[in-house]
Amino acid sequence: MGHTTSPRPTIRLEDVARPKPGGNGRNPTVTRIDRIDRVVVESPLTIAVAGEVVATTMRTPGHDLDLTAGWLVSEAGLRGAGDILDMKALAASARDDDEDDANDDHESSEIDTVQVRLAPGIQPPRPRAYVTSSSCGVCSADVIDAAPVPYAPLHSTGWRLVPSQALELIEQMRSRQKMFDLTGALHAAALVGPESEVLYVREDVGRHNAVDKVIGWRLREGDTRGVILMVSGRVSFEIVQKALRAGLPVVAAISAPTSLAVDLAIESHMTLVGFVRGAAMSVYAGASRLGVGVDAPALQGSTGRVIEVGG
Amino acid sequence: MGHTTSPRPTIRLEDVARPKPGGNGRNPTVTRIDRIDRVVVESPLTIAVAGEVVATTMRTPGHDLDLTAGWLVSEAGLRGAGDILDMKALAASARDDDEDDANDDHESSEIDTVQVRLAPGIQPPRPRAYVTSSSCGVCSADVIDAAPVPYAPLHSTGWRLVPSQALELIEQMRSRQKMFDLTGALHAAALVGPESEVLYVREDVGRHNAVDKVIGWRLREGDTRGVILMVSGRVSFEIVQKALRAGLPVVAAISAPTSLAVDLAIESHMTLVGFVRGAAMSVYAGASRLGVGVDAPALQGSTGRVIEVGG
Repeated sequence: MGHTTSPRPTIRLEDVARPKPGGNGRNPTVTRIDRIDRVVVESPLTIAVAGEVVATTMRTPGHDLDLTAGWLVSEAGLRGAGDILDMKALAASARDDDEDDANDDHESSEIDTVQVRLAPGIQPPRPRAYVTSSSCGVCSADVIDAAPVPYAPLHSTGWRLVPSQALELIEQMRSRQKMFDLTGALHAAALVGPESEVLYVREDVGRHNAVDKVIGWRLREGDTRGVILMVSGRVSFEIVQKALRAGLPVVAAISAPTSLAVDLAIESHMTLVGFVRGAAMSVYAGASRLGVGVDAPALQGSTGRVIEVGG
Repeated sequence: MGHTTSPRPTIRLEDVARPKPGGNGRNPTVTRIDRIDRVVVESPLTIAVAGEVVATTMRTPGHDLDLTAGWLVSEAGLRGAGDILDMKALAASARDDDEDDANDDHESSEIDTVQVRLAPGIQPPRPRAYVTSSSCGVCSADVIDAAPVPYAPLHSTGWRLVPSQALELIEQMRSRQKMFDLTGALHAAALVGPESEVLYVREDVGRHNAVDKVIGWRLREGDTRGVILMVSGRVSFEIVQKALRAGLPVVAAISAPTSLAVDLAIESHMTLVGFVRGAAMSVYAGASRLGVGVDAPALQGSTGRVIEVGG
């Protein structure tokens, strides 16, 4: 697997019981397992043609020369191997690495730039300043380098979302995802209010659009803050960044996060929960808002402690 | 559902039997159902701030003012409703439509532009020339308007992929998707050669990166043509466009296509197959390459003909 996946301390919550109707409202018992999970690596690769940066893409490291060549088939109309004079994959720490050393060996986690020389007559793609995500393959490196400016610091933003509520809210979002049932092709995003109610659900062919639609609705209502975000899909860096800029302290997802998403959530004092399904979920950052104790320590192995947590 | 989904004639193939080992090699019987399926609408929305175009996003129509406001939270740091002086959603056919007429009523399929005026002191995002996909929410309208230039016209490109082979090949790709099993967060793309063999499988956090990686590998081997593309995820306009530019006559996917993906595949004489799962699949374009007869006629209802197709 090389550097295509990366370990992150994770609190796995299992056997999450639902509150009984008419119960005392306390958080039912859950099982906490501290362990090391592997998440997919998301990191920026800059593509330069004839010495000029033409794009930066958020990608999983590895096969970076193939990625660059394929991107140029779409963007510059390459048709055969002869359209490329040469390509070099460069590591941040060792700019003199060449292709033989650095590429296609699954050890390219340090590679952050590919330099290309095209054959005479091949028109390079025009340089672009992109800002976007791992889902589209074209984004701006300065998004990564520049610290995202949050609406307000999140470390002092309280929120309590007990695990059983997270499961119920995700199910509510899913049940209101009408178009997915019809087409199988839509991502959903939802905002949850302080009374643990789903306020607004939107679907879109683009994950980021669905998030923009719910955050934009909230903005037009007056202020983006005071809610948390749920998403149906994967959580990339950009999804955490959007939540951060809107001042949302919690992101909960049905699917998995990327390495950069986890890192940004931890740095930002955001709560990030993934794989919210069935009777379980995985907490990657900010566990205290879930009422299950402190964040996972950097454990040395994947065999974690098992703790029964009451409410 | 309004204009968020759109009907497309579809050939549904069910009860697809696998070839028996030692059989006569003919295409086993399948059931063909001609019907109308709904696909999610993907269409471009241009965002203009103070009269200047700042982005075009591929989105599902509806709630376009929310989408614009939310995008500006991330890109221009909006923090409250007062940061927007006004927004207008404009239809291509009626540029004088105003917000009340045109937005948030689920009837905005004709809307293609939102014009925004920001409050004094709010810095607009800088204009950008994007080229990308529905998955990232930011792309270039000229990608849509300009006919993609295929490697070579596909209408004369023969290929035979019988339905049972499609199922087997998708399963082979899935079984080689190692990182997904570990992280649950990766998209796969694969190229299949003329002997119905999976040549190359790549995974990436971005759907488009995975496609670029396999096409780039093929380019570096000499020529992109002579293979077909399989993907684990959804098929957006840009995925079909990438296949077209590489001269690949068939795209087969585990998941669903968008409206624009179907339209481009039909126009390009490409074969597009979705929902390749279990013992079934849905053919949206170019059925003749699957050996199940001609493409679906524009049926009037969703109750289709059922035809047994032999090999």
